[in-house]
Amino acid sequence: MSLQDFINEAISPWMNDEGNDSDIVLSTRIRLARNLEEVPFPTSQDQNSQHKVLQHVEQEFNQHSVHDFKKFQLVKMADLEPIEKRVLVEKHLISPNLADNKETGGVLISENEQASIMINEEDHLRIQLYYSGFELTEALQQAQELDDWFEERTRYAFDEHKGYLTSCPTNVGTGLRASIMMHLPALTMTNQMNQIVPEINKIGLVVRGIYGEGTEALGQLYQISNQMTLGKSEDDIIEDLQSVVKQVIDSERKAREWVMQQSGIQLEDRIFRSYGVLAHSRIIESKEASKCLSDVRLGIDLGLIKHVSKNILNELMVLTQPGFLQHYAKKSLKPNERDWFRANLIRERLQLEQYNN
Amino acid sequence: MSLQDFINEAISPWMNDEGNDSDIVLSTRIRLARNLEEVPFPTSQDQNSQHKVLQHVEQEFNQHSVHDFKKFQLVKMADLEPIEKRVLVEKHLISPNLADNKETGGVLISENEQASIMINEEDHLRIQLYYSGFELTEALQQAQELDDWFEERTRYAFDEHKGYLTSCPTNVGTGLRASIMMHLPALTMTNQMNQIVPEINKIGLVVRGIYGEGTEALGQLYQISNQMTLGKSEDDIIEDLQSVVKQVIDSERKAREWVMQQSGIQLEDRIFRSYGVLAHSRIIESKEASKCLSDVRLGIDLGLIKHVSKNILNELMVLTQPGFLQHYAKKSLKPNERDWFRANLIRERLQLEQYNN
Repeated sequence: MSLQDFINEAISPWMNDEGNDSDIVLSTRIRLARNLEEVPFPTSQDQNSQHKVLQHVEQEFNQHSVHDFKKFQLVKMADLEPIEKRVLVEKHLISPNLADNKETGGVLISENEQASIMINEEDHLRIQLYYSGFELTEALQQAQELDDWFEERTRYAFDEHKGYLTSCPTNVGTGLRASIMMHLPALTMTNQMNQIVPEINKIGLVVRGIYGEGTEALGQLYQISNQMTLGKSEDDIIEDLQSVVKQVIDSERKAREWVMQQSGIQLEDRIFRSYGVLAHSRIIESKEASKCLSDVRLGIDLGLIKHVSKNILNELMVLTQPGFLQHYAKKSLKPNERDWFRANLIRERLQLEQYNN
Repeated sequence: MSLQDFINEAISPWMNDEGNDSDIVLSTRIRLARNLEEVPFPTSQDQNSQHKVLQHVEQEFNQHSVHDFKKFQLVKMADLEPIEKRVLVEKHLISPNLADNKETGGVLISENEQASIMINEEDHLRIQLYYSGFELTEALQQAQELDDWFEERTRYAFDEHKGYLTSCPTNVGTGLRASIMMHLPALTMTNQMNQIVPEINKIGLVVRGIYGEGTEALGQLYQISNQMTLGKSEDDIIEDLQSVVKQVIDSERKAREWVMQQSGIQLEDRIFRSYGVLAHSRIIESKEASKCLSDVRLGIDLGLIKHVSKNILNELMVLTQPGFLQHYAKKSLKPNERDWFRANLIRERLQLEQYNN
């Protein structure tokens, strides 16, 4: 498999679109939690009913298409090797939880991988939709259309007062979680995230680093999402999130300007040194790679680095995760071997970039 | 001035020759201290007699040639700007001491800059000769020929018992100092220099780092030279030095093999990261530049880095000294401006290398 083929396999087609505010917002995700009426929730561990849900989806939706979504394909966890499941997790098409449901877990994936519906995760159905850039309204609208498509052939567990019923009470109501993945290097550099995160939490939204553990944000990537699903309409949830994200975008842009004014040459040095590390190192740990990728992406957004595609951060953050590395190496790798493969893969990827330009 | 012209100006032509053991020995230097009979030593501060020495050299040797040395040219310190003197110091054609002798200091330089005769430094004449690589015997022979040429038209201060008389007693006798500049990264990495240096000192030779201050060796470059000038023939001095340097060369080669066997991938990573820093940084201090240049040179010698010329270490160690940087910038530079110019110059130099190959 050539590197280009591998990348094509690793990167979902929708990632190549350029969305709104794509200098800061990498992607928008909408998730709807839904359950079937009069069927025990997956948390009940009732294998029989879970099998029925999987069967229902297979009969009604597999190989079908709706609106702009070309053919959906059902993938059953039972049919996948552990490494294949890991790759789907790293592409964010399934959750680690779903991967663990070997018997009855499944996922229905649209051709461009923009939509994925997890089956028998915490809820019977988890409809997920990804967009490049900041596209909350469009994403919600499409998610609702998908939801309608499912509802046409499925009876949802729904309560007149509470709304959609879910396994976990935190999802009851709209069952909606909207998340925005943002690249916030300047706010991180200027230590403003320490103030911004608690502020955002106060108004009922959640900020967390992605790819990192705990509060540390690898690659200076943060996800902002709504916490509440109950007592607010879907439109209100989206509107509140939209307004906060807009403010964060503004702050990040101002912080970038400020850093460039205050210490432009130091920032340029840092960015190009990071490029140098990615382009030349022979061993690189995940943490350092994330830091350097973040710097390079900032360099691209600031117009300092040319001839390197904007997607390189998101793409290489995915490609250099353990699952993909092992998929690429075609064998399981010890941590030190991963560091070697990671360096190789990044180097080859950057060379491909030079070659393409 | 193009970078290539500047480099041509900065790099003495002899530096482009490839001498023996050039993977480890960068250059060989022979220096003979000589004084004129019945003329007070320069240390006496007798301006009048110093002027006469300068005049004598101008009349007898300026614009003359001998053997393979094409036309010698006399340069008087009085005619040079401070920056020009600094450049000559960084090319090792004159000493800082000579540069300070504004009135009567001078230097006679051969066309390929291999031979330079300092006038009115500590002694009336200091005949210096440089060779690329490990070339002690050849260098001594040529220095003696130059010495003979001078002696034909000059009466030296000489004592039947003591030999050549010099200002400083440590030079009396042969007046000979032979020095070998070596690149010893593997012996440094494996901490063997800490043992080797005292051993060499014990047998009457001196090891010191060059370009560094104190014991620290910038660029892992060390100079080994004889200390004694009295009580030993020139041939014996050279022979002793030759044998010690050969041993050090052997040890360095073995250490390189060992490091490659023990931690080849770590070493490769270090070397390529250093290349990345040199090729991409926008600000670089002298110390870091030296460390990276040393790594890259080792990478070339180990065959890991191709398409970069071997001379890059010696060349960039000279080019990135403050004098040359300011000469290149055509203005005096503050330390932080130097770091910026240094990074620029190194980057452009490496790009030139890619372009040439």
